[in-house]
Amino acid sequence: MKIAIAQLNYHIGNFAENGRKIIEAVQRAAEKSADLVIFSELAISGYPPRDFLEFNDYITQCNEAVNEIAKHCVGIAAIVGLPAFNESKKAKPLFNSAAFLFEGEIKSLTNKTLLPNYDIFDEYRYFEPNNVFECIKFKGKKIALTICEDLWSLTDNPLYTLNPMDELIGQHPDIMINIAASPFNYKQTKIRKEVLKRNARKYKLPLFYVNHVGAQTELLFDGGSMAINSKAEIVGELAYFEEDLKVFDLEETENKTATNHYEDPGEIASIYKALVMGVKNYFGKLGFTKAILGLSGGIDSAVTAALAAEALGAENVYNVMLPSRFSSMHSVDDSLQLAKNYGMPYDIIEIENAFNTFESTLKPYFKGLPFNIAEENLQARTRGVILMALSNKFGYILLNTSNKSEAAVGYGTLYGDMNGGLSVIGDLYKTQVFDLARYINRVGELIPYNIISKPPSAELRPDQKDSDSLPDYDILDEVLYQYIEHRKGPREIIAMGFDGALVNRILKLVNTNEYKRYQTPPMLRVSTKAFGMGRRMPIVAKYLS
Amino acid sequence: MKIAIAQLNYHIGNFAENGRKIIEAVQRAAEKSADLVIFSELAISGYPPRDFLEFNDYITQCNEAVNEIAKHCVGIAAIVGLPAFNESKKAKPLFNSAAFLFEGEIKSLTNKTLLPNYDIFDEYRYFEPNNVFECIKFKGKKIALTICEDLWSLTDNPLYTLNPMDELIGQHPDIMINIAASPFNYKQTKIRKEVLKRNARKYKLPLFYVNHVGAQTELLFDGGSMAINSKAEIVGELAYFEEDLKVFDLEETENKTATNHYEDPGEIASIYKALVMGVKNYFGKLGFTKAILGLSGGIDSAVTAALAAEALGAENVYNVMLPSRFSSMHSVDDSLQLAKNYGMPYDIIEIENAFNTFESTLKPYFKGLPFNIAEENLQARTRGVILMALSNKFGYILLNTSNKSEAAVGYGTLYGDMNGGLSVIGDLYKTQVFDLARYINRVGELIPYNIISKPPSAELRPDQKDSDSLPDYDILDEVLYQYIEHRKGPREIIAMGFDGALVNRILKLVNTNEYKRYQTPPMLRVSTKAFGMGRRMPIVAKYLS
Repeated sequence: MKIAIAQLNYHIGNFAENGRKIIEAVQRAAEKSADLVIFSELAISGYPPRDFLEFNDYITQCNEAVNEIAKHCVGIAAIVGLPAFNESKKAKPLFNSAAFLFEGEIKSLTNKTLLPNYDIFDEYRYFEPNNVFECIKFKGKKIALTICEDLWSLTDNPLYTLNPMDELIGQHPDIMINIAASPFNYKQTKIRKEVLKRNARKYKLPLFYVNHVGAQTELLFDGGSMAINSKAEIVGELAYFEEDLKVFDLEETENKTATNHYEDPGEIASIYKALVMGVKNYFGKLGFTKAILGLSGGIDSAVTAALAAEALGAENVYNVMLPSRFSSMHSVDDSLQLAKNYGMPYDIIEIENAFNTFESTLKPYFKGLPFNIAEENLQARTRGVILMALSNKFGYILLNTSNKSEAAVGYGTLYGDMNGGLSVIGDLYKTQVFDLARYINRVGELIPYNIISKPPSAELRPDQKDSDSLPDYDILDEVLYQYIEHRKGPREIIAMGFDGALVNRILKLVNTNEYKRYQTPPMLRVSTKAFGMGRRMPIVAKYLS
Repeated sequence: MKIAIAQLNYHIGNFAENGRKIIEAVQRAAEKSADLVIFSELAISGYPPRDFLEFNDYITQCNEAVNEIAKHCVGIAAIVGLPAFNESKKAKPLFNSAAFLFEGEIKSLTNKTLLPNYDIFDEYRYFEPNNVFECIKFKGKKIALTICEDLWSLTDNPLYTLNPMDELIGQHPDIMINIAASPFNYKQTKIRKEVLKRNARKYKLPLFYVNHVGAQTELLFDGGSMAINSKAEIVGELAYFEEDLKVFDLEETENKTATNHYEDPGEIASIYKALVMGVKNYFGKLGFTKAILGLSGGIDSAVTAALAAEALGAENVYNVMLPSRFSSMHSVDDSLQLAKNYGMPYDIIEIENAFNTFESTLKPYFKGLPFNIAEENLQARTRGVILMALSNKFGYILLNTSNKSEAAVGYGTLYGDMNGGLSVIGDLYKTQVFDLARYINRVGELIPYNIISKPPSAELRPDQKDSDSLPDYDILDEVLYQYIEHRKGPREIIAMGFDGALVNRILKLVNTNEYKRYQTPPMLRVSTKAFGMGRRMPIVAKYLS
């Protein structure tokens, strides 16, 4: 039996385009003599459709599209993920389902049992869990079909009390198929392989696994679909970060030993690819081509510009330098050099006049109070206004250049440098931004070394340095990582050897700045715990604040 | 037996203060000879604690606080909601629990079975559902204790497959107690009463119900705790929108017939109280006292100012009028009159200089292109910068004045008039804002009639009217309501008699402006479907866009 894995980049709610892509892949798989072609979880709707799932009209359109795809499944079978109505009219109204299409029709539906409802996942919001287990019979083989999370409860400390494969194995299946929507983070590729191999090992069955690829707003799907034989060897992988289709012969994969593995390029290289894809798909799926951003001379905007140039083409990334009286000369020079290195268009727009006008407008109301955070923010907001005006005039999307360290502690100006349609590096701690800059420069000095080597500064008052207000990033980032990614409390972090007063100060900054993060753009997610949809905090709360 | 209901306003994560309030209420109940005093769901942590529940430190502090409360339960018993560790180390790590405190210790824990995971609720994200059912025995009575949603699956089309009271009723309980966290919306008060009465009727048992009161960021808890006898008559209610404690004698409530009901003041009056409480608690719990807002001369900012004056005291609401060359004279006059009617401080700050400076700064880059949305937004953003500068200088919180109609269709400027720490009327359609203005004026002309009667305008270009770009609000609001509150698709809305092209245009506006709503402040929630935590949409999607 030949099984094709079709790893595609879907567009949420674009039933016509998703359907067209799927039908085209069915035809390509048929041309390669595949008996069966598999598509990922909720393929037809895109993942995650979120509250569109509450619209009957949306579900109906998904079902209409899958019925249309079924007509093309003649001589070849397909498995396609879709949201399906729970016909019983009891419990929740939907299942997260996989349609088995053959002979021009939907032969059966298999529903998802384990519904992830943590971090960025909200599946229990929409779906009723499955409790009926039946293998699919096809061409003399029994297929144990599961959906994503269904294979992820094989630990000593399981999140779920039920395990779908334990239910199915009694029916003596020949093959496992898992259709997934497993988003990237820089730890996920390894973990995913381990989990899938553990299943093959436990059940002594080959496993064909298909994942999404492409970005859905902040979520980045890396693909990496694969075939694993019953000896738990990965015998073939599909591409990472791009669409792919591969056909596997079941007999061959069983006799093959592991070869031809995807070379893991390491965390930073994967992050780079993920972010480039994230920018590219955000613009592409929204129908935009051009970005604008403010180049400050610092590393955050430099790395953002570099990523955007790779994603959109340098000619589509408009860089604006907005110096004030506090900007050092090298800030503009370094930014100019960066723009020139990439061949990106740029302009230098002084903010002095606008800033002065605001100062004089506000003078009677400021009552002689000294220069403080109000004037600092005023500069950042003046820049924000200019960038947004250009964005509005010419249809650019403004890229946000904040990093995770400053988003965490609120070191940024709301409606100023926190503006943007998309935050490109908002899930990278400052220390990771430096790593990424060095990675970008692996081929030469694209980002001027001076940008990487100088001490970080917001340049909003004379001789300002980040280190005036913040701990060293090495320490700050580690404390933040323990608190945000590992949900350690202050007592646990202090017990790791960090200074108590420092830890309490950092955690207080994180919690009292929740209101700022509430209003920031979506951040491309590359970590196990990103700000945004995966981290939900009350604004009004007293804990650690 | 005497049962006290303690309806309190908790502060999320403020264990010391919540604990102090609870202990003080235990003492007051004991003084009134109560045998038992009941507190609401997750009382000790505040509701909703959201992802703080992922911190072991947070749960540990909740448990420490409840152990401290237990020490004060001597001669009186108490039921207190708290998050509790799932000791089995299987499945999810927590239960949403109710501790029964007596004789100085925690006698038992009862866990929640039905975990709401829709709209603003995420309980399945944190909690394992209960599957053990046992009544509490106390002073010769059996108490069937349930938590909020546990009583809410009594319909013909149940959301859950299990019903906790059906499990408990076999143990022949004498009393039902339900501890809740049931947020307000303008339909909820009636529905809640019906659901609770239906339970009393079905199980032929008295029911003592305790709810939260007070605002938690955008969620508004109205209180309305109550006692219902076994004839399903409401025999006593606690206050709405304020803390309260009442003691009920079980024998008396059984013999009593319904009297003394809370007079439902109607939707608009309830909304008014809810929003005032929302503003008051947002400021109070964050430790702020003063608000700033921009008064445009329109109805949205006028109503927002009126609500803020009621919540914070007129002297704490600083109104700034920011006229431009396009502002009509009456806009400033009407705003002045409003400020004077309330005795609110105000200033008039012309934006002409700042706007001109931006125009001349941008002139070389705008390349002679005509005045358009870029210049309109520029005015709104100039105002935003000035308001934020004053906010930063003096520690005011900026109030956002957007309404739900404009938030829905994106008729507002990101980083301009969409700024603010809190959106006060963001869950009210424009037509409801008019209703609220008339309600506020029930005692006299507080909001100048001219503000209510003139046609809405953004005044960002000459002679602009909202009706130039938007359908009449009567029609717009009805289409939006069907789409947002009822999740009707275009086919269903058109079938109701609305013009097809108009419906498609409106829904497209809603969906293409998701990116703007992503960055708006939290909106005080008064409807069954508010923007924000209860409505989760992808930004990048093709459906209806």
